[in-house]
Amino acid sequence: MFQINDNFTKIAGNYLFAEVARRVSAFQDRNPQRRVIKMGIGDVTEPLPEASIKAFHEGVDDMGRRESFMGYGPYEGYAFLREAIAKNDFQSRGADIGADEIFLSDGAKCDTGSIQELFGANVRIAVPDPVYPVYVDSNVMAGHSGLWKDGRYEGFVYLDSTPENGYVPAPPAEAVDVIYLCFPNNPTGAVATREQLKTWVDYARANKALILFDAAYEAFVRDPAIPRSIYEIEGARECALEFRSFSKTAGFTGVRVAFTVIPRDLKVPDSTGKMHSLHSLWMRRQATRYNGLSYPVQKASAAIYSPEGKAQVKTLLDFYLENARLVREAILSVGVPCVGGENSPYLWVRPGGDSWAFFDRLLNEAGVVCTPGSGFGRCGEGHVRFSAFNSRQNVQDAIALIKQALTKG
Amino acid sequence: MFQINDNFTKIAGNYLFAEVARRVSAFQDRNPQRRVIKMGIGDVTEPLPEASIKAFHEGVDDMGRRESFMGYGPYEGYAFLREAIAKNDFQSRGADIGADEIFLSDGAKCDTGSIQELFGANVRIAVPDPVYPVYVDSNVMAGHSGLWKDGRYEGFVYLDSTPENGYVPAPPAEAVDVIYLCFPNNPTGAVATREQLKTWVDYARANKALILFDAAYEAFVRDPAIPRSIYEIEGARECALEFRSFSKTAGFTGVRVAFTVIPRDLKVPDSTGKMHSLHSLWMRRQATRYNGLSYPVQKASAAIYSPEGKAQVKTLLDFYLENARLVREAILSVGVPCVGGENSPYLWVRPGGDSWAFFDRLLNEAGVVCTPGSGFGRCGEGHVRFSAFNSRQNVQDAIALIKQALTKG
Repeated sequence: MFQINDNFTKIAGNYLFAEVARRVSAFQDRNPQRRVIKMGIGDVTEPLPEASIKAFHEGVDDMGRRESFMGYGPYEGYAFLREAIAKNDFQSRGADIGADEIFLSDGAKCDTGSIQELFGANVRIAVPDPVYPVYVDSNVMAGHSGLWKDGRYEGFVYLDSTPENGYVPAPPAEAVDVIYLCFPNNPTGAVATREQLKTWVDYARANKALILFDAAYEAFVRDPAIPRSIYEIEGARECALEFRSFSKTAGFTGVRVAFTVIPRDLKVPDSTGKMHSLHSLWMRRQATRYNGLSYPVQKASAAIYSPEGKAQVKTLLDFYLENARLVREAILSVGVPCVGGENSPYLWVRPGGDSWAFFDRLLNEAGVVCTPGSGFGRCGEGHVRFSAFNSRQNVQDAIALIKQALTKG
Repeated sequence: MFQINDNFTKIAGNYLFAEVARRVSAFQDRNPQRRVIKMGIGDVTEPLPEASIKAFHEGVDDMGRRESFMGYGPYEGYAFLREAIAKNDFQSRGADIGADEIFLSDGAKCDTGSIQELFGANVRIAVPDPVYPVYVDSNVMAGHSGLWKDGRYEGFVYLDSTPENGYVPAPPAEAVDVIYLCFPNNPTGAVATREQLKTWVDYARANKALILFDAAYEAFVRDPAIPRSIYEIEGARECALEFRSFSKTAGFTGVRVAFTVIPRDLKVPDSTGKMHSLHSLWMRRQATRYNGLSYPVQKASAAIYSPEGKAQVKTLLDFYLENARLVREAILSVGVPCVGGENSPYLWVRPGGDSWAFFDRLLNEAGVVCTPGSGFGRCGEGHVRFSAFNSRQNVQDAIALIKQALTKG
């Protein structure tokens, strides 16, 4: 008799953004005339850079002619794109990453969710709280946790990110084997300094732990003192992977492009102590379970590294950062605590109280969608996340409504 | 200390097609002047249907304008594509499948590799031999097998596909919990009759087993008596999933589109006997680990269901089927046993002897690439697979070389 993977029954509730979408949809069904401004999910609103549109069309045309037609591509992606990434995103910032250490994929969500397939059964996993739910749920589904209890899964080490530590946790006293870090952070928008990241790299090296560094929002960093890659930190090549995404960098949420960096010198043991290259293991995983990224999509991606593409991406990011600044200013003006919104498209706001209750009130009274902080973990209670991905008009209209709700709360 | 998933160390050798690519690349390095004709991997060579190119461009243009821009799409894909699939691929053939039972993805390889995440730890898995390696390797990596021994993994039930049973195995005497079936078969090209599939559905219902039906090559079926979907068989909705791909149907190997069908009434137990909807479990998996398929790619996909798209796809498939017929005729003309090549783009040829040795000889002497049968499993020894995905000129040139090699062998 077929039986399911029981670990799926451990998962607490819906996937957060699916639940947000469900409540918004129910609200719209009840109130078909009401305007809804979505400041919840971090989904981009502005068109793709013109350079990407042009290259995308060229890639499509290539597929329409026998002589330029492309079939299966390399599992890790085409060299033309990996080389542009290595040069522009890493080497130009002094991070020693080669094109052959980059694995392209159709989403950082896919990669951050799949990387746990490489974990041994008994690794001790540390996750931030609040946390991007994928890190947690993917591990729970794979049996890397205990049961859900009092708002947390047994077996994980939670790294509390609180007002007291500026939402940047320090390494725990105990030894852990895997550490998920995300900076600029989703959901809090907090950034980590060079010194803070150095502490984590030193900890990982001392404990032979693996850092999974999610840098999906690095393009929003404007402070030159803040590292944009973990590989700007000495020693990271021997203990860290990095996840990147084109989703927010270039407005690619509906196009689907991301990549994972695995240094070639990163060696990890099996349970007998024999050492393996993590790069080779991931290549084997990708060769078995993935068939590469759509060719025209890779063409569109490479165009963001052209001179025009770079300028267009900067304009796009400036636009969202100005949205973030406006929301931040409005929230601080009514005296409600808030981090993020600088070097990040997210704002982590602390109205206090039950965060789903605030979500429901803001939706029902103002027609504004946020993301309830408790959906990201126990430390998210009392907080909500606002996203700066929106039109300027929507942001301006939402600001007035948000200020009103925060003042009433 | 971080440790890897030891199951990765159980995997025997390279992924088959990576190994084929490695040998071909080494040959080309040694012989830069020699022409190589690739009849190995099943990769399409002809341009996308014009209707898809046109719709692809329209989808790209949508992404360049704020008013038509698309961000994150539904995890399961846009309704416009799922509805076209349900109507044209299923309902039109009397298979009762709704649009809400279709999950789009970027590859049947991804889906057939990921579906095992839903399996309980102790399910007994049956795989065909020869087999598409993904079914086996994905389960081995996830710990659903024992060790590699004498060319097979302990713990799996192998369904021998041999000249004696016409390469269509009957259900085993023992009870198994999961059954991977693929028709038209990869690698053999064999097709299953309605009666043969009915035997499997009856077996699955009697044993409460789950059938994973890979129909990636169904578009090549021209015999109206041969089912193209498992859902043409009564009772399949309660025991079977189906995997489909646009890769071979419409030449999308470099575009990346596939889908999985999970009927809403398919209920499966956890280890306590509590029943769950497999559809809901997969939706939860996809919401957590996947972020939907590229929007312009979905637009390109839907175009194959337009009247022009259908005609263009038929022309494309006719072209490859004529290639297959030519190769088949040539092989049979020299008296070497061969199946497939009718209702399938693959030919399963039995020169006898060591199949990697035949592969190497054909490559080195003739510059023609096939796929060694033993790479697909123990029953593949003595066989090689030829693919009909090529230009007519290449096929015609290869035929002479293949006949020569088979005659000498």
